[in-house]
Amino acid sequence: MSGSPLLNELIEALRCLPGVGGKSAQRMAFHLLERERERGLKLSKVLEQAMQKIGHCSRCRNFSETPVCAICASSSRDRHVLCVVESPTDLAAIEQATGYRGQYFVLMGRLSPLDGLGPEELGLGLLSERLAEGDVEELILATNPTVEGEATAHYLAQLARAAGIRPTRLAHGVPLGGELEYVDRSTLAHAFGSRQSVE
Amino acid sequence: MSGSPLLNELIEALRCLPGVGGKSAQRMAFHLLERERERGLKLSKVLEQAMQKIGHCSRCRNFSETPVCAICASSSRDRHVLCVVESPTDLAAIEQATGYRGQYFVLMGRLSPLDGLGPEELGLGLLSERLAEGDVEELILATNPTVEGEATAHYLAQLARAAGIRPTRLAHGVPLGGELEYVDRSTLAHAFGSRQSVE
Ligand SMILES: [Zn+2]
Ligand SMILES: [Zn+2]
Repeated sequence: MSGSPLLNELIEALRCLPGVGGKSAQRMAFHLLERERERGLKLSKVLEQAMQKIGHCSRCRNFSETPVCAICASSSRDRHVLCVVESPTDLAAIEQATGYRGQYFVLMGRLSPLDGLGPEELGLGLLSERLAEGDVEELILATNPTVEGEATAHYLAQLARAAGIRPTRLAHGVPLGGELEYVDRSTLAHAFGSRQSVE
Repeated sequence: MSGSPLLNELIEALRCLPGVGGKSAQRMAFHLLERERERGLKLSKVLEQAMQKIGHCSRCRNFSETPVCAICASSSRDRHVLCVVESPTDLAAIEQATGYRGQYFVLMGRLSPLDGLGPEELGLGLLSERLAEGDVEELILATNPTVEGEATAHYLAQLARAAGIRPTRLAHGVPLGGELEYVDRSTLAHAFGSRQSVE
């Protein structure tokens, strides 16, 4: 098909990337070969490292290549506020859009019994231990404003109250039915700043 | 920004891919980490091999990890017909869309004096040697139907005639001003089948 078996392999391998079909995989391969060999080589090395070394932080479950991630290990982050998000993407969106300086807990999903995602799969035992340590005063429930995200927030609010901790939820402004990662920065920053106690 | 310096590096490195901005790089990285570690690792290895080993075929200039590419080396391809294309992408499009069983010559560009692309940069010396070998009877000029592609075809037609070889051009059907790689398969197959002598 291309005269080079290795090139065909590369095109096929690039299709593991989300949203990349045969035609874009081909364009990517040719682009790298024609113009970006150095950066392509750099990508291969970083990708190998990442796939082999990145696991999950033992405190917050976020991606991390060390046992405790950089955010959890930081002495400059406020230990009295803990923000619960569904995914590392949401964490990144909040870090980029807001001035939040507290810590995080990453569920790596949301409560969804039909998909086999219950409290155990979301690490809520670890979260309960964390709340029991006594440092956290406010638990920000930054799950997505979807049906499952709201149900998850409801569950977490009960967990917080049981531990004597104030649960808060992002203010209205985040569009209903949307995904946090696609909300524009200013809306997200506003919603984050106006978070309210969960009644 | 993400709690993992290595993850940040991966997101940055993925941006060497054409059409991949910060947001899609992030989505790709998370997708690989959450669901496709094995395929991500496989991609890293193939990518490294490809960036290091793929060069150009000494006969046709197409990408190849061996001195002579698989198409040029094949004994089942007709040596009497030579198809000249601008890029490996165009070669792949013709291989996929048509039943062509001849050989190729890949210009890796088109005549474009303003960009410093002249006969030498396109390997036309190598092409002339090839035509002088005496095997080629028909030179198919499958450059793109753009202004520069037409000018290139015109130049190549003269080269062919000087060597006593019949130049042909893809039939009408390929849309004017378009790029071969984006033409649908059936149009391309039809145009290829109806190629005509260049007057
Ligand atoms: Zn952490
Ligand atoms: Zn070749």
